[in-house]
Amino acid sequence: MKLQTGYLFPEIGRRIRSFGAKNPDAKIISLGIGDATQPLAPAIVEAMKKAVVNMGSEAAFRGYGPEQGYDFLIDAIIENDFNSRPAPAAGVGAHSIDLDNDEIFVSDGAKCDTGNIQEIFGLNNVIAVTDPVYPVYVDTNVMAGRTGRADKNGQYSKIVYMPCTAENNFIPEPPRGSVDIIYLCFPNNPTGAVAAKEILNRWVNFARNNKAVILFDAAYEAFITDPDIPHSIYEVEGAKEVAIEFRSFSKTAGFTGVRCAFTVVPKQLKAYTKNGKAVEVNSLWHRRQCTKFNGASYISQAGAAAVYTTEGKKQCREIINIYMNNAAVIRKSLTKLGYDVYGGVNAPYVWMKTPDGISSWNFFDRLLQKANVVGTPGSGFGPSGEGYLRLSAFAKPDDVKEAMQRFAAV
Amino acid sequence: MKLQTGYLFPEIGRRIRSFGAKNPDAKIISLGIGDATQPLAPAIVEAMKKAVVNMGSEAAFRGYGPEQGYDFLIDAIIENDFNSRPAPAAGVGAHSIDLDNDEIFVSDGAKCDTGNIQEIFGLNNVIAVTDPVYPVYVDTNVMAGRTGRADKNGQYSKIVYMPCTAENNFIPEPPRGSVDIIYLCFPNNPTGAVAAKEILNRWVNFARNNKAVILFDAAYEAFITDPDIPHSIYEVEGAKEVAIEFRSFSKTAGFTGVRCAFTVVPKQLKAYTKNGKAVEVNSLWHRRQCTKFNGASYISQAGAAAVYTTEGKKQCREIINIYMNNAAVIRKSLTKLGYDVYGGVNAPYVWMKTPDGISSWNFFDRLLQKANVVGTPGSGFGPSGEGYLRLSAFAKPDDVKEAMQRFAAV
Repeated sequence: MKLQTGYLFPEIGRRIRSFGAKNPDAKIISLGIGDATQPLAPAIVEAMKKAVVNMGSEAAFRGYGPEQGYDFLIDAIIENDFNSRPAPAAGVGAHSIDLDNDEIFVSDGAKCDTGNIQEIFGLNNVIAVTDPVYPVYVDTNVMAGRTGRADKNGQYSKIVYMPCTAENNFIPEPPRGSVDIIYLCFPNNPTGAVAAKEILNRWVNFARNNKAVILFDAAYEAFITDPDIPHSIYEVEGAKEVAIEFRSFSKTAGFTGVRCAFTVVPKQLKAYTKNGKAVEVNSLWHRRQCTKFNGASYISQAGAAAVYTTEGKKQCREIINIYMNNAAVIRKSLTKLGYDVYGGVNAPYVWMKTPDGISSWNFFDRLLQKANVVGTPGSGFGPSGEGYLRLSAFAKPDDVKEAMQRFAAV
Repeated sequence: MKLQTGYLFPEIGRRIRSFGAKNPDAKIISLGIGDATQPLAPAIVEAMKKAVVNMGSEAAFRGYGPEQGYDFLIDAIIENDFNSRPAPAAGVGAHSIDLDNDEIFVSDGAKCDTGNIQEIFGLNNVIAVTDPVYPVYVDTNVMAGRTGRADKNGQYSKIVYMPCTAENNFIPEPPRGSVDIIYLCFPNNPTGAVAAKEILNRWVNFARNNKAVILFDAAYEAFITDPDIPHSIYEVEGAKEVAIEFRSFSKTAGFTGVRCAFTVVPKQLKAYTKNGKAVEVNSLWHRRQCTKFNGASYISQAGAAAVYTTEGKKQCREIINIYMNNAAVIRKSLTKLGYDVYGGVNAPYVWMKTPDGISSWNFFDRLLQKANVVGTPGSGFGPSGEGYLRLSAFAKPDDVKEAMQRFAAV
């Protein structure tokens, strides 16, 4: 009941419906919510069809699976997403992040995992979040009772907010005060900023020195184009001692309607009781998932495993390229029109400064009314997002081109 | 960290693996965990294949769905599961439980829903559970911090336990003290007991008089064979003011690996703040689900909708009949052998008294070693389950018959 406002996207939906009702002929183009628009890759469709047929056969039917996911998927995840990445301080020939199967927890979505993870930590832990921020991190802590009330800016007491603006390149410094749990998201939603290895290094050191835990949301890692940017926080020395990493097939493979994701909780990671006793976080999360979750759909897991086949990788890469071309078109068009734009190079989001200092919601409304184009008001992600608009690259290419023409006309 | 023991089923799995390792030739038959073994009905397979193909097509691809589920499924649920049931105090021609679409919340499982529902209630609420009980109700409250520590019987302080034994026909009386949240499960897991309308009436009246909320787990309603037993608590006068109902496709349609369920939260239902202010529970759960959940898989929802087609209903009924025949075989065989057995008539579980007063785990071990048959120790569900074993009817008919022959031989 402490939550101030509705979740951001329902409010956007309300304004679109209201405008659409008054302007039934308007062809609205949405660059708002970050939702996949390209159909699933053929390799994924074939794998899921096969899984469905299996479920109808006496010999191949599967009931309850392991709560943490099937090994056929976990093996593919470790081999492709981690063993292929450079380990920290790797010697010659030692280019691999190693993980055990019981350090991977397959789930039905990164929203669920980033929302549920706080349950295994005490209510007195102080959390730190960036501003702007993906609202789920904050709202789930408010609901758990880990915060005080909101101020007039919508910021809650007992949360440490770390402003991200053009001045600091949308990368915050570690806070000065004591914090216990730090939410980081790179490539960032909503700003599109990415963290170089030395930035992640600084955060991991901060966490190690302060017995803090980093919750690292890497849901957009597949959109990184710069080869020097880490895809996993475990590319950084010591990260396994302090960081949980969240991954998702939602944007990587268009699974927003299929539902599959995973969370990495290394067994080296420790949290501390009030009395300073070290506790293994992996077994706490294992127990939480066994008690409250019954595994992701077998069919979704079969589809996710196909993402890692030779065909699946190629087809998913082509789809990601479509979205990243969209991002390039948005960046180029808006830059040409004189707007300040950020992100969109290693992330599927472009973060644009509104013109003439007008507010995010006013610019949202103006854009909807004059161009029939929908963005996401930056202020919906926090006070430091005021004066920005997020544009998503997850639209159809023709829609993106037309949206940019309308921008130019307005 | 307060949780006493691992979740029951992993411990059973451990003992089976240990026995199997020492006796590699033993053909173990499991009547333990309640997991579907019959393949999915053909109508469901066809619907899910079509859904998968749609996800691979430009025109029919679906991204994020409504967090509360698609209307195509919710419409079918309301029409078939509720409009077909007699409403309380129905006049002539008024035989229907009416629900609005926004009172149904589709999810990925009843374990998730019965585990998560406690989040929307304050930590000072006192919960009441039956003993024996499905462990998820208790463990999730322990994890939330709503209880004290466990005593030597494994029962936690600040929880009101209501013993269910042969003496009270496994139906508890409402507690004398004040409780805020009551978990009831009918048809019951593990005892197989069902509640007649007058029993549910008494509970609803108790909740109305005490401003309590009933969490009614009806995951096994499809197994009711007696026409006088209510399938929904909303068949009782006033239940919409005090009860949340949980349903699942797991056992009804073999969805344990597919994942789809739903929860009913009537808008009339109110909870009360510490200061006595009435709050609508529906909007709290709506906000919880919007913030922490992204909807069940579209493919699973398409499969669930097929459960309600003419073919789907017929095919699912045939599968349920297979399981209920199993239950009848178990009941008849064990009765003939002189055991005291309960349940198995309106529920897929048979609850048997162990012979000669031996403990549940000793009987479990003896049965595993001598007959290579697995049951679930009653004491795993609570102290009043000591001296009982749960036998699940969710096995293949030939396995059930062989298990009963081995029982007879031992």
